[in-house]
Amino acid sequence: MLDIKIEKTTNPKPIPGPEDPLVFGTIFTDHMYVMEYCPEKGWHDPAIMPYQPISLAPSAMVFHYGQEMFEGLKAYKTEDGRILLFRPDKNAERANNSNRRLMIPEIDPEDFINAVKTIVEVDQAWIPTKPGTSLYVRPFVIATDPFLGVRPSNTYKFIIILSPVGAYYPEGLNPVKIWIEDKYVRAVRGGIGEAKTGGNYVASLAAQIKAHDEGYSQVLWLDGVERKYIEEVGAMNIFFKINGTVVTPVLNGSILPGVTRDTCIALCKEWGLPVEERRVSVEELEAAAKDGSLEEVWGTGTAAVISPVGHLRYEDDVFQIGDGGIGQISQKLYDTVTGIQLGKVEDKYGWTVEVK
Amino acid sequence: MLDIKIEKTTNPKPIPGPEDPLVFGTIFTDHMYVMEYCPEKGWHDPAIMPYQPISLAPSAMVFHYGQEMFEGLKAYKTEDGRILLFRPDKNAERANNSNRRLMIPEIDPEDFINAVKTIVEVDQAWIPTKPGTSLYVRPFVIATDPFLGVRPSNTYKFIIILSPVGAYYPEGLNPVKIWIEDKYVRAVRGGIGEAKTGGNYVASLAAQIKAHDEGYSQVLWLDGVERKYIEEVGAMNIFFKINGTVVTPVLNGSILPGVTRDTCIALCKEWGLPVEERRVSVEELEAAAKDGSLEEVWGTGTAAVISPVGHLRYEDDVFQIGDGGIGQISQKLYDTVTGIQLGKVEDKYGWTVEVK
Ligand SMILES: Cc1ncc(COP(=O)(O)O)c(C=O)c1O
Ligand SMILES: Cc1ncc(COP(=O)(O)O)c(C=O)c1O
Repeated sequence: MLDIKIEKTTNPKPIPGPEDPLVFGTIFTDHMYVMEYCPEKGWHDPAIMPYQPISLAPSAMVFHYGQEMFEGLKAYKTEDGRILLFRPDKNAERANNSNRRLMIPEIDPEDFINAVKTIVEVDQAWIPTKPGTSLYVRPFVIATDPFLGVRPSNTYKFIIILSPVGAYYPEGLNPVKIWIEDKYVRAVRGGIGEAKTGGNYVASLAAQIKAHDEGYSQVLWLDGVERKYIEEVGAMNIFFKINGTVVTPVLNGSILPGVTRDTCIALCKEWGLPVEERRVSVEELEAAAKDGSLEEVWGTGTAAVISPVGHLRYEDDVFQIGDGGIGQISQKLYDTVTGIQLGKVEDKYGWTVEVK
Repeated sequence: MLDIKIEKTTNPKPIPGPEDPLVFGTIFTDHMYVMEYCPEKGWHDPAIMPYQPISLAPSAMVFHYGQEMFEGLKAYKTEDGRILLFRPDKNAERANNSNRRLMIPEIDPEDFINAVKTIVEVDQAWIPTKPGTSLYVRPFVIATDPFLGVRPSNTYKFIIILSPVGAYYPEGLNPVKIWIEDKYVRAVRGGIGEAKTGGNYVASLAAQIKAHDEGYSQVLWLDGVERKYIEEVGAMNIFFKINGTVVTPVLNGSILPGVTRDTCIALCKEWGLPVEERRVSVEELEAAAKDGSLEEVWGTGTAAVISPVGHLRYEDDVFQIGDGGIGQISQKLYDTVTGIQLGKVEDKYGWTVEVK
């Protein structure tokens, strides 16, 4: 494991107080973590330094050819003052899956986790404590060769920044309305859909704006081949409870393998619910909504943890889900996952990692 | 049209001499063009300034969500000392097509063209003059909001940098070997394939490395839905001459609409050749290669202009093309297009634009 050099800021910023609004992704802490890659030295010289601008040549490859990878996880402060990360090993593993697809050199998972722990420890005073708040951790890699031409970069930066974030639902859990997109496509089998990389997100913007204009908060994507099978939401995986069975789209190469998805599958199984990872078509949902067997729908992701879905729209049809309120399993998953994250519910699976 | 402020460098770099090697995309000129966008002012304050690093917050959206667009064109010096651009209006138009798909604010084509002309004029001493050389012009836009979260950025930078480039084929036109990829997919209908944006290029790297390892210089992509129809090469469009007819894949939303492609279609038509823009399957090519009717194959793109293809490989099959040499139409297109670009062949269509 590499040694991290730490240089603390001499000019700390004011830390938001418990009553200050924390708009997601707008406030950043005092420090950042940076590690460089070159072919001769591999990943080297990791350092924590004051949060500061990055200076790159205008020809830096990341500006032109999209060679960039990111991750997202959260750090929580428990009532007894401990700091917990939730399954950072899964993010380290997914980062390397993305890296391989994007031809970015892999990062030793131990260095990845140690980096997250160390930067969170350095900026621990920034972890908010009000219910629902947390410190969002954003590791990312960018290609830095000053070169125009399509090939993998030789040099990279791996950076981690931190942002204190508020409750996703300040008023408590609230069902969202979701738009099933039938024209735009986010990703396709054989492409980069299962990698966490900018290209997948820029591809989603046009449909997202269209959905917002129609009064929907998120887009639910269909597969790129037949435009018939459910994939995932903009930044969440999706689950359906149909006739007592929990169903979620199988990881097929074009869906992001969510950490929260994996967590929910494990919990549902523990609770004795039948869980199926398989293809789910829009037609199946439509039929289930019609005959009343579509009992619950929820999204899963680091930002909101669990997002109950109140209704789905596909072309001119609206699929009503249960009674339109928060489903029982959605609520139980939310309470259990956030409970484990905050150290209030027993962590049977060893999912939490303490930062000392 | 916006007024461009010009600040010249006081510290010019040495300009490569005629015998210095010009490796594509590695050397940059003394100046760059930068224009900023914000919702209040729109695109504003264009300026030419000394070539210098860009400083961005680590949270700048371009590093995370891939909201970036680029273009590529060339400036040439004619024997009588004039400076010519080739169809910059097409790049301005395509930039805005990309911008719309990527939710980036459009740039007035007049400002785009004026920017290219002005920066080329400022750095005209950098335009190399040896046969086959030129000044590569790289306009690009990056999203700069310091924000984590998936939505279009509110602020952007539009930048132009210049790089003197050598002949693509220092030994003269030379047939290349191309790998038809059957596993990885670059883009799919409904996605961002027709936009010139980083996400499409990072998606291509894994297959490109695989092709190189097999001794092939470029990848030919198949459609993402059926993986059966030809799309385009890594950074070129593709043409086939089958039984006297020129055939090129129709623009279907997942292919980049190349300027050189458009140019070649116009010239072939002028020469009385039948031209078809339509779907072309691998099976059709295979059959044509077998019965000898696959007479020529060439790629078209700004970098190489025309790239004759000597053979194609699909899975375990090699398709032999003509006699494996440079086809007659490929050579004629190369001579005509480069002739027009250098002011040696009459420019009937008004494709060249002089920089004064
Ligand atoms: C496209 C997409 N799908 C799913 C998820 C959910 O993944 P996770 O549960 O790891 O946060 C995310 C991100 O957070 C995402 O960006
Ligand atoms: C993917 C792709 N296709 C085709 C082309 C050819 O386009 P043009 O002739 O405008 O250079 C390019 C770029 O140059 C490209 O990047």
